[in-house]
Amino acid sequence: MNGFTYDIPVKVYFGENKLCHLGEELRKYGKRVLLTYGGGSIKKSGLYDRIIEEIEKAGLTVFELSGIEPNPRIDSVREGGALCKRENIDVLLAVGGGSTIDCTKFIGAAAYYDGDPWDFFDKRVPVPNCLPIVTVLTLSATGSEMDAGGVISNLETNDKIGRSDPLMLPKVSFLDPTITYSVNPYQTACGAADILSHIMEVYFNTEKNLYMLDCFMEGLMKTVIKYAPVAIKEPDNYEARANIMWASSWAINGFIKGGTSLAWSCHPMEHQLSAYYDITHGLGLAILTPRWLEYTLDENTVSRLYQFGVNVFDIDKSLPPMEAAEKSIEMLSEFFFKTLGLQSTLTEIGIDDKYFEIMAKKACGGDVIPGFKPLNQQDVENIYKLCL
Amino acid sequence: MNGFTYDIPVKVYFGENKLCHLGEELRKYGKRVLLTYGGGSIKKSGLYDRIIEEIEKAGLTVFELSGIEPNPRIDSVREGGALCKRENIDVLLAVGGGSTIDCTKFIGAAAYYDGDPWDFFDKRVPVPNCLPIVTVLTLSATGSEMDAGGVISNLETNDKIGRSDPLMLPKVSFLDPTITYSVNPYQTACGAADILSHIMEVYFNTEKNLYMLDCFMEGLMKTVIKYAPVAIKEPDNYEARANIMWASSWAINGFIKGGTSLAWSCHPMEHQLSAYYDITHGLGLAILTPRWLEYTLDENTVSRLYQFGVNVFDIDKSLPPMEAAEKSIEMLSEFFFKTLGLQSTLTEIGIDDKYFEIMAKKACGGDVIPGFKPLNQQDVENIYKLCL
Repeated sequence: MNGFTYDIPVKVYFGENKLCHLGEELRKYGKRVLLTYGGGSIKKSGLYDRIIEEIEKAGLTVFELSGIEPNPRIDSVREGGALCKRENIDVLLAVGGGSTIDCTKFIGAAAYYDGDPWDFFDKRVPVPNCLPIVTVLTLSATGSEMDAGGVISNLETNDKIGRSDPLMLPKVSFLDPTITYSVNPYQTACGAADILSHIMEVYFNTEKNLYMLDCFMEGLMKTVIKYAPVAIKEPDNYEARANIMWASSWAINGFIKGGTSLAWSCHPMEHQLSAYYDITHGLGLAILTPRWLEYTLDENTVSRLYQFGVNVFDIDKSLPPMEAAEKSIEMLSEFFFKTLGLQSTLTEIGIDDKYFEIMAKKACGGDVIPGFKPLNQQDVENIYKLCL
Repeated sequence: MNGFTYDIPVKVYFGENKLCHLGEELRKYGKRVLLTYGGGSIKKSGLYDRIIEEIEKAGLTVFELSGIEPNPRIDSVREGGALCKRENIDVLLAVGGGSTIDCTKFIGAAAYYDGDPWDFFDKRVPVPNCLPIVTVLTLSATGSEMDAGGVISNLETNDKIGRSDPLMLPKVSFLDPTITYSVNPYQTACGAADILSHIMEVYFNTEKNLYMLDCFMEGLMKTVIKYAPVAIKEPDNYEARANIMWASSWAINGFIKGGTSLAWSCHPMEHQLSAYYDITHGLGLAILTPRWLEYTLDENTVSRLYQFGVNVFDIDKSLPPMEAAEKSIEMLSEFFFKTLGLQSTLTEIGIDDKYFEIMAKKACGGDVIPGFKPLNQQDVENIYKLCL
C-alpha cells in the first residue's frame, strides 16, 4: 500500500439557489471575467441570463467565449488564451459540462504561455500557471469540476490527449442538481457511463487499496446504478440528479485513488475512438468497458470481479468466483445496453475496423498500458474487435 | 434535502516516511514554530527527535509547549496564546492526538485575541483569526486533523465546551499509520468508539441524506468494525492502522454531513461525563451510544436502525424491522464491550447518579437536543441511568 498526498482545495456550493454566491466568489479573483460555454442550451434554459445578472450585480466586466465543442478542440484553447491576454482577463467562469470546463482549464494555462498551447499536449511543456477558474456545472459526467485535468482534441492530427496539473484545479464549483433536469436521457446515460468508468478504472486494480476506499467506490457505483435509470425516467427527480452529480465529482477528484498507481485502461482506448470518430466519450466507454473486463478476466483478476459482482450487483456470494465474475460482467452490459439503452457495439454507431491498428498503437503510446491487466497493442486491437 | 457548502482545503500527507515534507510545509508559513504536544510519549518513541531534526534542517526556530492534557484545559490555551504573542510565533505544529490538536487550534485563535480565551466558549466571542496550524497525528480518533473544531475543558466550572471555526482548520496534516503502532489496545478501542460515534451522530438521522453519503458512512463504519479488532491484536498491522486513520479523518471532516442539519446527541451527553469525571471521551461514547439508540428506537427511527443493521452488521434483511433494529443495537454493544473489551457501564468506571441532573441540564443547554429523537433534560437523565 503506497502513501499519497491528498489536496483538493475546491470549494463546492451544492444545491439549489446557490448562484447568489457567484458574484462574491468571482470578485475574490478580480474584475474582468471571461465566461466560457458551449452551444446555446444555457441561453434556452435561462441559466445564461441568471449568470449575467449575478456578474453584473457584482459590478464585474464580462467577456464571452461561446461555442466550445463536445470533445473540445485545441482551436478553442488558442482562441480563449489569446482573448485572455488581449483583454487582461482576471478570472474564468466555465458554464457547462466537462468539455467546457476542460477547455477552460487550458485557456487559463494558455493565458500564461507564449507558444502554441498544443505544446502542453504533444511536447508536454509544463503548465506555467493558470488563471483562477470558477465553474457552474450543467452535466454530471467528467468530474472536471473538481479535478485538475482535461482532455483536448486536435482534429488535424486525430489526437485526443489528456493532461493534468494542480494549477488548473477550479477554485470554486457550483453544483446545482436542478440545472441538470434539462439533460436528455441519452446524455444522462452517457454521463453515467463516464462516471462509472472513472470509478472502475481505479477499482479494477491488482494493487492493495484501502478497504475504506473500496467500500466508497462500491457505494459510488451503486449510487450511479440506482439513480441513472431514475434520472432518465424522471428528469426532474432531485434526489437522483443530486446523487449522480455529487458522485460524478467524487469519482475522479483523486480521493478514491488512495495510493494506487496502476494506469487507466478504458480511457486511453476510448480517447482514440472519439479522436477518430468524434463520438460521445461516455458512449465509447460503455461499449468498451464490458469487453475490456471480459478480456482481462483470468486467475489474477477474478477475485476483484467477484467482489464487484457481490458488493455492487448483489450477486450471490456463494457462487464459484469465476461464475460470479462472468455474471458481474453480464450485469454491467445489461445495465449499459438495456437499462440505460445505450448502443452496444461500434458497428451500430458506424465504426468499423479501419483504424483499429493505428488507434491501438496510439492508445498504447508505443508501449504497454500497465493497467488491471497489462495491454499491448495487439490486446487493445483485440478489445476493439470484441466491440464490433 | 438541503444544500451545503463543501470546503476542506486541508492538505494531507498520508503514509510512511512523509515527514521529510514537514520542513517545506512549515516554512511556507514563517520561521518561528511553536511545537505543541502532550506527555512524553513522543520522546520515548523517537518521533520528537525526528521532528526536531526536520525543523532544524529547514532552518526554523522552534519553541515548545508540552504537557497538553487529555480533555485539554483552558489553562493550556491561555499559556500557549501568551507564548505566541511573546515570541511572535508564525506557525503552530501540533504533534499528538485530538487533545493536542484541539488545544492548538484555540492557541492559534488566542494569539489574535486580547481577552481571556475562555470567552470563545462561554461568551461565544467570534474567533478573530488563527495562526496557521500543521499537525502530525499520533492517535486516530477525534478527526481534529481535518476539521475546524475542538473541545476545551474548564476544571473550575466543570465545563467542557466545543467550538468550531473554519479559520482554525489545519493547513497540513501528516498521517503516518506507523506512528500509531504504539497506541495501546485500550486507547485504540476508545479511538474506534469515537470514530464510530462521529459517523453515527450523522447517520442516525430522520432527514433525507444523499444515498451516496449513506453508502460512504456504512463503509466507514464497516471499516472501523473490521480493523479496530485487528489493530488491537496486531498493533503494527499497517493495513488496519491505515484504514482506521483515514476513516477517522473522513468521519468528521464535514463530507458525510451533506446537507443534514440535525444536532448531535451522544457528544453533548458525553462531554458532561468527561467534564465531571475526566474520563476518556471514546469510552464515554461507547457506554452511551447503545443506550441512546435503545432509548430512541421507535416507529420513527426503526427504519434507520434496520438499515444500519443490514448494511453494517450484515443482519438478515428479511427480519421484521423492529427485530433487526434491536439486533443491530445488540451487535453494536457486543462490538464495544466484547470485541473491543471496553467497560460497559458507568458503575464499572466509578460513576454514580450524583451529578446526572446537572449534567443532563447542561447537555441540553436548558432546551432540547434536536437530534435523531429530540431529547429533553429528563430524557438525557434517563439515558444516563440506563448506563449505570
